[in-house]
Amino acid sequence: MTFTVKALQKTGPDQPFDVAEIERRDPRADDIVIDIKAAGVCHSDIHTITNEWGRAHFPLTVGHEIAGVVSEVGADVTRWKVGDRVGVGCLVNSCGDCEQCREDNEQFCLNGATGTYNSEDVDGTITQGGYSEKIVVNERFAVRIPEKLEFLEAAPLLCAGITTYNPITHWDVKEGDKVAVVGLGGLGHMGVQIAAAKGADVTVLSRTRAKEADALALGANRLAATAEDPDFFANHRGEFDFILNTVSAAFELKDYLGLLKPRGAMVLVGLPPEGLPLPAGAVIGNSKVLAGSNIGGIAATQETLDFCAEHGLAAKIEVISAEQIDEAYERVVTGDVHFRFVIDTATITDAPVGPAAAASAA
Amino acid sequence: MTFTVKALQKTGPDQPFDVAEIERRDPRADDIVIDIKAAGVCHSDIHTITNEWGRAHFPLTVGHEIAGVVSEVGADVTRWKVGDRVGVGCLVNSCGDCEQCREDNEQFCLNGATGTYNSEDVDGTITQGGYSEKIVVNERFAVRIPEKLEFLEAAPLLCAGITTYNPITHWDVKEGDKVAVVGLGGLGHMGVQIAAAKGADVTVLSRTRAKEADALALGANRLAATAEDPDFFANHRGEFDFILNTVSAAFELKDYLGLLKPRGAMVLVGLPPEGLPLPAGAVIGNSKVLAGSNIGGIAATQETLDFCAEHGLAAKIEVISAEQIDEAYERVVTGDVHFRFVIDTATITDAPVGPAAAASAA
Repeated sequence: MTFTVKALQKTGPDQPFDVAEIERRDPRADDIVIDIKAAGVCHSDIHTITNEWGRAHFPLTVGHEIAGVVSEVGADVTRWKVGDRVGVGCLVNSCGDCEQCREDNEQFCLNGATGTYNSEDVDGTITQGGYSEKIVVNERFAVRIPEKLEFLEAAPLLCAGITTYNPITHWDVKEGDKVAVVGLGGLGHMGVQIAAAKGADVTVLSRTRAKEADALALGANRLAATAEDPDFFANHRGEFDFILNTVSAAFELKDYLGLLKPRGAMVLVGLPPEGLPLPAGAVIGNSKVLAGSNIGGIAATQETLDFCAEHGLAAKIEVISAEQIDEAYERVVTGDVHFRFVIDTATITDAPVGPAAAASAA
Repeated sequence: MTFTVKALQKTGPDQPFDVAEIERRDPRADDIVIDIKAAGVCHSDIHTITNEWGRAHFPLTVGHEIAGVVSEVGADVTRWKVGDRVGVGCLVNSCGDCEQCREDNEQFCLNGATGTYNSEDVDGTITQGGYSEKIVVNERFAVRIPEKLEFLEAAPLLCAGITTYNPITHWDVKEGDKVAVVGLGGLGHMGVQIAAAKGADVTVLSRTRAKEADALALGANRLAATAEDPDFFANHRGEFDFILNTVSAAFELKDYLGLLKPRGAMVLVGLPPEGLPLPAGAVIGNSKVLAGSNIGGIAATQETLDFCAEHGLAAKIEVISAEQIDEAYERVVTGDVHFRFVIDTATITDAPVGPAAAASAA
């Protein structure tokens, strides 16, 4: 009924990663088995497994930026065949029947979507994520990875890509729009590429000029350093049609809303701490919009991959092996990543069971 | 170059109203003179003239819900002729050339729209509002009052009407949508009627059941008393497609955002005090929208009047005479108005110059 695969696992929030054997269910009739080639490291993985968000079930394997190849299909599978290049993002199941699922918003499933890790699965077990050799998912929750995309650079599109593509598309960013992307990390670096590919005039807002060359290389028209001009927010009032705000630290909503044109929208995709003060006048005055956006459905995820392949976009990554995962986490927390760590999962296969960091010495 | 008309005026924020003679400019070539028949009392009038918002220029006449008849037209006026029934709302001028004006969003004029009162006018004087016998405005800033609407019941449509019609239309409220209107005052009572006329299923959210009969009479499907159920917000999570929030007191953004369906929008049209805490997760979790809305342009104002006439809607009002204005202000502040006070401006003509409240004794 189950089989075992190697995975990177934590037994508690403060433990280092281990290479461990974890169980996967035998594929059901509508499941596929995916041999994972690449697994991106998302900041949400860290928030979850360090239990900052609470509710973590240990031992736990995280990872929801998964790229690989179909290695087995259940009896009723119609969408995929062995050998297909597929990706899995943040979701592995949903009811399929509710108003939200029917509108391709599985992430909002009214009966509760199943997250790729740390969620209760159909069989009552807790889902285990993509830092692993294989995963078993319902065929509806895989998307096709276009041939043009390498597995390693495609993996982050499954979360960072869809998380930024979805609001940029939903809010109709188009040619000539003035777009600001706040923060140039895993999310921001995808947002810049996607907005630029839509034909927008893109400004990266960053505290300093440190990432200016990166911003331009990703397709931004310019980087503006908000901390270098004490009157920055006053001097740039009303400039932007759309702001994609990827910052997860506290910031002044009023300052950024002030940068919008009338009827402009700022969408939050980072998760800043609770209780940012909102002066209502900052949205009422010029009929502005403050919205949030949370990943996207499966159809939109496929669209993200197709859009990226069509426009030659992909995540800019640092490839790591299993034994580098603890160090990579430390670097993500300090913002020292350029722009996404992706685990070459072959190194999990090669690593002996035991502390992950010890693998290189083994 | 100027002529005088009688108006209700305050000489300072704490003074009672006087009936006074104020000056109007002689109409320019593109101006019309309007004989005012009715002037609504908006809470913004009170915030302004009591100097709560600062920047009040005394002596001052307020009022931006104006309905009347064209009595004179400038040489170049093409849109209006003497005898036309017209209204004037919150704006009396704008540049007409900027991106916002060209898109019929004169309220967002990038060169600064001219407010109907307490704004600097084209001739450098301070604009004086509609609690008056006559007003002189650029012909572009008048709208036609359909024959079906009485002046008194039409006047509040020029602010309370457009303020609620505009977001309901912009956010595409349509047949079958689940809409909540928070607060049943001057704005809310128009919002309920307009949303119901759009075919939405309308719930009034009020602290108590005191206004239940009113809500139903205005076309709401029900009133829900938020203070009567300690778990109200938990019990009604995810119910609404759209919330029109007219409240100007402090409230918990998180509670109301929780009532929205995924991708639902709450629009603020009241002006709650600064610094409502916003937990970012309350908009990110289900990709929700928190927006503000500020009146509307001239074309949208005309559309509001036409929509109301077509659907048999109008403001529900209490007609007052000049000498009741001080008392009416006190009642607006305590929420004791059903649902809008409108001044029958003939009573200003009839009143002697001097303290307004003394007019009845005169």
